[in-house]
Amino acid sequence: MANLFVRFLIGGLAMLAAIGYKNYRELSAPGKRPELDNNAYWGPELSKQNYKENKAILPYDISVNPEVIADLKSQLSRPLKLQAPLEGVGFEYGFNANELQKVVKYWRDTYLTKWGEREKYLKKLDHYQTEIQGLKIHFIHAKPSKEAIKKGKKVLPLLLMHGWPGTVREFYDFIPLLTAGSDKSDYVFEVIAPSLPGYGWSQGSSKTGFGVAQVAVVLRNLMVRLGFEKFVVQGGDWGSLIGSNVASLFPENVLGYHSNMCGNNSPMGSLKLMLSLAFPRWFVDEQNAHFYKGFGGLFGFIMEEMGYAHIQASKPDTIGNALIDNPIGLASYIAEKFSTWTNPAFKTLPDGGLTKRFTYDQLLDNIMIYYVTNSITTSMRLYSESMNKAQFALSVDSLPITAKTGCTRFAHELLHVPDGVLANKFPNLVHSTHQQDGGHFPAFELPQQLYEDFTAFVQKAEL
Amino acid sequence: MANLFVRFLIGGLAMLAAIGYKNYRELSAPGKRPELDNNAYWGPELSKQNYKENKAILPYDISVNPEVIADLKSQLSRPLKLQAPLEGVGFEYGFNANELQKVVKYWRDTYLTKWGEREKYLKKLDHYQTEIQGLKIHFIHAKPSKEAIKKGKKVLPLLLMHGWPGTVREFYDFIPLLTAGSDKSDYVFEVIAPSLPGYGWSQGSSKTGFGVAQVAVVLRNLMVRLGFEKFVVQGGDWGSLIGSNVASLFPENVLGYHSNMCGNNSPMGSLKLMLSLAFPRWFVDEQNAHFYKGFGGLFGFIMEEMGYAHIQASKPDTIGNALIDNPIGLASYIAEKFSTWTNPAFKTLPDGGLTKRFTYDQLLDNIMIYYVTNSITTSMRLYSESMNKAQFALSVDSLPITAKTGCTRFAHELLHVPDGVLANKFPNLVHSTHQQDGGHFPAFELPQQLYEDFTAFVQKAEL
Repeated sequence: MANLFVRFLIGGLAMLAAIGYKNYRELSAPGKRPELDNNAYWGPELSKQNYKENKAILPYDISVNPEVIADLKSQLSRPLKLQAPLEGVGFEYGFNANELQKVVKYWRDTYLTKWGEREKYLKKLDHYQTEIQGLKIHFIHAKPSKEAIKKGKKVLPLLLMHGWPGTVREFYDFIPLLTAGSDKSDYVFEVIAPSLPGYGWSQGSSKTGFGVAQVAVVLRNLMVRLGFEKFVVQGGDWGSLIGSNVASLFPENVLGYHSNMCGNNSPMGSLKLMLSLAFPRWFVDEQNAHFYKGFGGLFGFIMEEMGYAHIQASKPDTIGNALIDNPIGLASYIAEKFSTWTNPAFKTLPDGGLTKRFTYDQLLDNIMIYYVTNSITTSMRLYSESMNKAQFALSVDSLPITAKTGCTRFAHELLHVPDGVLANKFPNLVHSTHQQDGGHFPAFELPQQLYEDFTAFVQKAEL
Repeated sequence: MANLFVRFLIGGLAMLAAIGYKNYRELSAPGKRPELDNNAYWGPELSKQNYKENKAILPYDISVNPEVIADLKSQLSRPLKLQAPLEGVGFEYGFNANELQKVVKYWRDTYLTKWGEREKYLKKLDHYQTEIQGLKIHFIHAKPSKEAIKKGKKVLPLLLMHGWPGTVREFYDFIPLLTAGSDKSDYVFEVIAPSLPGYGWSQGSSKTGFGVAQVAVVLRNLMVRLGFEKFVVQGGDWGSLIGSNVASLFPENVLGYHSNMCGNNSPMGSLKLMLSLAFPRWFVDEQNAHFYKGFGGLFGFIMEEMGYAHIQASKPDTIGNALIDNPIGLASYIAEKFSTWTNPAFKTLPDGGLTKRFTYDQLLDNIMIYYVTNSITTSMRLYSESMNKAQFALSVDSLPITAKTGCTRFAHELLHVPDGVLANKFPNLVHSTHQQDGGHFPAFELPQQLYEDFTAFVQKAEL
């Protein structure tokens, strides 16, 4: 199948027509909270009849069956039949097979031999599970340090959310900063970091229609279950979007919203985003102009970096069948993002700059969570369930977020959206910053920097 | 990563701007044959110094090492850990895991136990290999029947090309029709059906830049090597596009061009395609109007069916690493296309209608060719090498094809292009038809019907 170029062109035009029409009608329409069932059941049909939500909050043991590790080792010991990369190529065609060979060798010969140690590391935060709407939801619960409380710091509950292909592992250096508190901040945090439903140790839906808005309901219900009627939200990637849905749908619960990937998908936001690409000077200070790459940058980004989203939004089960129980493919597919999304310049390096900002251990911890939980397919379904007509029809994007909002932009994030474009979605944007370093996974890559920005927001917002 | 909807919109706009500009300058520019090195070397750098093209044309043994079969059987015997499909879902989210389970069971317990028979079947046509420009190129060579020659039928050499995710296996019922000849036709064919470079038994390039135009040079050189200075071209999918490149670049060699997926990617073609979507009545007879689905159909098709092309054009090695030496993932990824592209209505069936038009044996033969040759990564690189600036800059699309052309449209093809849109690319379009049945793989699905259309074209064109 060829003709891709023309087809994308036509697709864009069709969408322009569709959205243009929508814009005229809805641009200034006030957002209305959609009717969502806050108790919708998402578990398997078979269990539904006798289902009674078990509201217990139980410690959760993340230990991995040693047989799984032994089997993984044997899979990684098969002779590798990877196709050699084209001559002179780094990561421009995706994950370089020579580098993958090194990752597999390290995984098998080093990482797995010290798995006990890695497992102990993953257990250093406290894991829990509870049932919400038919789904077993896993989360980390980290309490503020006694020292910080003694110092009289204000304690705020925080719902902290990862995205794809991340896991709670991204937060292992970030959470201790949040719970310890610092001299610079009057606040300290009680952190709830769930595995998103269908990710890692959290069960995925058995039913269709479980997109960002429905996930937002589940995670808001989780916070309420834990006794937090009011809480702060932080996230990137899907965590940012789900957080935005939580804040839009439940203003009564959200004290403040902070994101390292703020976006505005309302009709007005889409229109303004286009304008900002065509006429950046209307929207962007000269000082930060280099963050905003215009049409060309956006077009390149869509063509070069959005293929994964395109296939996951349309055929998640096909690609899921290819990655589940396939450690080598899974590592290639996931770790590619931790190269290119951390810094696009890493694409030209033979090793993808993988260890410039992360260690193999960090990356493999994250991959292991997908592998041992067999959750790659369910994780990818979030794309198809969130990018479809039923989800768009909810128009959550058109609901302004009344909570105080902070947006920070790390230098190598995939797409930056200027304040002027965010305005109608975030009327209470009290904090907006540009970071001179970092990429798509700042909690993982630069936890101290994200912590400082986040606490600066909380301080400014006087939450 | 979300925001896909907006991003595609912006992408489309950017392309519109870019192509709009190009159109103004080049719409009516006469196409110029680009400077291509007809002897460019594509093999490994290491072998280059001492490389002397071995022009021998040798019989090729496609036998598979029994160890490979035994290993495959053991891989297929692992406990399956597929994620169950969402409740009530067929193939709407991609390849249904329940159906995949059945395919795997059949593959392991039935197909592989009769592998000797399948191998014998694959050997019933004659396989050869020769070296072209540093690459070992495999092809089937099928000679016209003595009977047909005795009857005085005119013999025409035919370059017959498959696409992705096809192989020469698609032609096993089509080729005998071509070589036997029929009472209805004055012609009979001497068929050369190569495995595309990087597909099946044909070696892939070690160097970057090996896109459709460069592949066209190699396959034209193959025909000349075999002594065919003048030949007919037939193809679908990539075979159609490569064939179009052969006919555009080498008018002196091409007697006629027939395709079951004619397209026109020249600036004028792109513009007219848009017009035809907006104003179908200018372009399409009422009688065939249902073939052309307008903006909405095209948009849906791009969003729902082009994810694979998007990822293969941008990260072929990542997805390749996930599929190579992964028979279950490979079957899921490849066979999905033989469901949905054969008839989009099959998407709602729990088994994807896989056996409505094909047998498991047929489908597994095709998958086996990718598997035993480890060629999935190299096959997918054709997308990235053909959809990039360097390839577009050759402007082969703007070279009109002077050879007589026949276009047929099977009912469920992914995208139909009306004659009016094809006009500037195919000034000699002597045969244009609409079939009331069939999909993207007509040689495989409806060989008799494709044969009749093809020979009707040859007859009409008086080749």
